[in-house]
Amino acid sequence: MSDQKVAVIGLGSMGFGMAQSCLRAGFHTLGADVDRDLTERFREVGGTAESLAEAAGSLQAVIVVVLNAQQTEAVLFGESGIVPRLQAGAVVLACATVAPGFARDMEARCREHGVLYLDAPISGGAAKAAAGALTIMASGSPEAFTAAAPVLDAVSETVFELGGAAGAGSAMKAVNQLLAGVHIATMAEALTLGMTQGITPAKFVEVISKCAGTSWMLENRAPHIVAGDYTALSQVNIWPKDLGIVLDTARAAGFSAPITAAALQQYMVAVGLGLGRQDDSAIAKVYARNAGLTLPGEE
Amino acid sequence: MSDQKVAVIGLGSMGFGMAQSCLRAGFHTLGADVDRDLTERFREVGGTAESLAEAAGSLQAVIVVVLNAQQTEAVLFGESGIVPRLQAGAVVLACATVAPGFARDMEARCREHGVLYLDAPISGGAAKAAAGALTIMASGSPEAFTAAAPVLDAVSETVFELGGAAGAGSAMKAVNQLLAGVHIATMAEALTLGMTQGITPAKFVEVISKCAGTSWMLENRAPHIVAGDYTALSQVNIWPKDLGIVLDTARAAGFSAPITAAALQQYMVAVGLGLGRQDDSAIAKVYARNAGLTLPGEE
Repeated sequence: MSDQKVAVIGLGSMGFGMAQSCLRAGFHTLGADVDRDLTERFREVGGTAESLAEAAGSLQAVIVVVLNAQQTEAVLFGESGIVPRLQAGAVVLACATVAPGFARDMEARCREHGVLYLDAPISGGAAKAAAGALTIMASGSPEAFTAAAPVLDAVSETVFELGGAAGAGSAMKAVNQLLAGVHIATMAEALTLGMTQGITPAKFVEVISKCAGTSWMLENRAPHIVAGDYTALSQVNIWPKDLGIVLDTARAAGFSAPITAAALQQYMVAVGLGLGRQDDSAIAKVYARNAGLTLPGEE
Repeated sequence: MSDQKVAVIGLGSMGFGMAQSCLRAGFHTLGADVDRDLTERFREVGGTAESLAEAAGSLQAVIVVVLNAQQTEAVLFGESGIVPRLQAGAVVLACATVAPGFARDMEARCREHGVLYLDAPISGGAAKAAAGALTIMASGSPEAFTAAAPVLDAVSETVFELGGAAGAGSAMKAVNQLLAGVHIATMAEALTLGMTQGITPAKFVEVISKCAGTSWMLENRAPHIVAGDYTALSQVNIWPKDLGIVLDTARAAGFSAPITAAALQQYMVAVGLGLGRQDDSAIAKVYARNAGLTLPGEE
């Protein structure tokens, strides 16, 4: 075992994989989640059987992999927030997708407690999280990078070092989510328009994935529609949140983002139709419903 | 020399390359363009020195690589249109991006003259055209495919056979253009939003091209913005035309395509700003102007 002692707060599909990667690196790793079943499951695979309250003072690093800014703030500074109980020089790696301004605020509040903060949003999905092969868009002080280095090595394949202060990492993540969210919705718009012209979803994927119209998201998500399988690998619900962050950031900057705005409306329709917890490729159902089309696997 | 005798009508960046590929395959190849300099230049590289009027009756194939439906119709059926002068069994390969309904109409009118028609829009750019390595989204009768086979072999690397009648090829091309046009505009939206957050265009390309937000168009076009080089490899003017075809096709099908509609408006602004003949990556200038940003290479 290494002498690193870390906590992973949030044991969803991404956090659980990152916590496993920390175990594999030999760290004493404590997992925490509001869902006690997940915490227990992580203990069963080797997680340290200590409460967060007991362990806080001896942690070198805390990885926060919760859903959003609100949960991040609650975990760090809420009623039983961990930051006031960390030792000076410990580092928080904040992985949720949040607005750049929120990341800067969290960095400043951690600094008041002598705690380092790495703005560290992640990209790559659950499989890469479990394999320790995530991409991290990181920014923070040199001291925060140094303190976080063992953890970054354990959980990631690529770390983009984007600047000396929090905010830049979250800004790059927002830019990536803008593209990813628009590309999924545009794939659905194109696939279903093709259906009105007699192009099957399978033929669409076969041809377009080899043409200039392809995207990473198209190749990843369109096969779900072909298979009629909307088991959530990444939920529709992610996009109102993440594109909302993009548009909040844009508005604060006096920036017009009409394509993102149009895509967000399509995700809002999907949520309104009750598709929020389905795979985000289910945005195709919005287009299919609007045009009276029957997608693969539907009656 | 093979005994194939073909004409290429339209010697722009795509047509010239396709005509060169026909020469390389050993065909008697006649090049025609309203710009006599281009016709002359093609004769200098080996094109047959015969007029279209003289040659028409002995051609096996005519490749039409003009800008749009209007020009295609003029070339085929206009005042000095070629179809009435072709021998029975000759094939027209129609490569412009046109509406599926237009392609079906042209096929029917060719049939009246005993002429075969292959709906054959192309993808791949000028470099691939010159190398005989285009992708062709083709549909038409088995007889049209058979008659076109030597030419398809000469000019393309990949031929997608999309059905037994004209229309399917153009439909797939429209779907591809929807994606390609939206992806270019979305790249510009994301790149410039990043600039408002301190992310340089160079850093944007470095990071995003390795993340889930990437697309074929992003990787191809964003470097033009980084270099500040808007020499037109593909013009802004292409997109009001092609996305117009997409939205006409969508409207005719009772299909709502809000993301395409939003992207088209951004291209319309670019045209309004006088950027129509610049490289399509110049759509970034619309966003930069709206947000008061200075792109690389600008003062």
